[in-house]
Amino acid sequence: MSTVSKSKVTATEPLDPKDARWVKLVKLTYTDPTATVRTWESAERLTRPHGSAIDGVGIIAIMQNDPAHPSAPPRILLQKQFRPPIDQVVIEVPAGLIDAGETAEACALRELREETGYRGRVVEGFGMTPVQWNDPGFCNTNVQMIHVTVDMSLPENQNPKPELEESEFIECFTVPMTDLYAESERLEREGYAIDARVGTFAEGIEVAKRWKLV
Amino acid sequence: MSTVSKSKVTATEPLDPKDARWVKLVKLTYTDPTATVRTWESAERLTRPHGSAIDGVGIIAIMQNDPAHPSAPPRILLQKQFRPPIDQVVIEVPAGLIDAGETAEACALRELREETGYRGRVVEGFGMTPVQWNDPGFCNTNVQMIHVTVDMSLPENQNPKPELEESEFIECFTVPMTDLYAESERLEREGYAIDARVGTFAEGIEVAKRWKLV
Repeated sequence: MSTVSKSKVTATEPLDPKDARWVKLVKLTYTDPTATVRTWESAERLTRPHGSAIDGVGIIAIMQNDPAHPSAPPRILLQKQFRPPIDQVVIEVPAGLIDAGETAEACALRELREETGYRGRVVEGFGMTPVQWNDPGFCNTNVQMIHVTVDMSLPENQNPKPELEESEFIECFTVPMTDLYAESERLEREGYAIDARVGTFAEGIEVAKRWKLV
Repeated sequence: MSTVSKSKVTATEPLDPKDARWVKLVKLTYTDPTATVRTWESAERLTRPHGSAIDGVGIIAIMQNDPAHPSAPPRILLQKQFRPPIDQVVIEVPAGLIDAGETAEACALRELREETGYRGRVVEGFGMTPVQWNDPGFCNTNVQMIHVTVDMSLPENQNPKPELEESEFIECFTVPMTDLYAESERLEREGYAIDARVGTFAEGIEVAKRWKLV
């Protein structure tokens, strides 16, 4: 059993808003297209920096010049991380919350270095996606995806040393992008949960293959 | 200006948990891999039916035999819908919450019919994705994506009549799947928000094209 699989939720209780440090609920009043006044309930993170348009970034990190996979198709860097909200180990891309005043690209390179030890380079001309809203009928959280290449032949990427906080436990692995959908199905059968950034991205690749969109 | 663009959030206030009907906050206690006891804050929907593994479904609906686009590449059905949590009109796939006892496939065909009026058929052998977790560091919400084809030559799809609730306002349109990424960038520049199921799916298609994964 891997280290990350040893975590477990042991208790669940209601959270009083006055004790909440990371999340909150809001009641929204809005007018619909007929000018009728309606209400909606929403959840929000408390961590988005003032003035920032996003909560954080996800990182599509494509490994290049890897001596371990010399002739393979491009591989994507993934993580296994235990997530208390679903009491499961999740298959995710590297990701993290943005700091005040930080650009999305700088956040991506910092989080990649901290979580995986790898030094990446933002892909020119295709570095940053539109803002993606995680579940906009339920909450206001969002993420911007940053595309990065990691040159595995560089000295700085020979012995990656993550800089994890003492509460963080992350395991890295890579998957050929052509196999990502089949791998996500296999990993789910093994008991892992599939983060939407991995699952929906894999779904897009798979549809491009099946419908010959290229 | 389209009808859906006429909605607007007019007030935001804290939501007292005792008044909440749709969402809640929970405090989780968990043990990490070193057996250290830690806590986490999470948001949840109150609507997931007892015994259901998912909150709802998203629908990748691919339009076929469309006389309006006889020789075009496959087109995907999208929606514009105002979402109060982000006070914006969102570009989404058809989607909806699952009913008690309902299969994900049945939910998808029902929601497609209710939201768009179209009758679809689940794609054989590629109908249902792994469960995709929307933001598992923040909440427990999830969705399963169902792939459906809509045969536009069938009589039942000639005059689609959505069955919307009186609080629902949805506009449908289609986009060639090969152009989905560029379209999502264009729609964001026009002021629309991009739902993650659209944005990350488009990103996967675009990466398959750029890295020649097919």
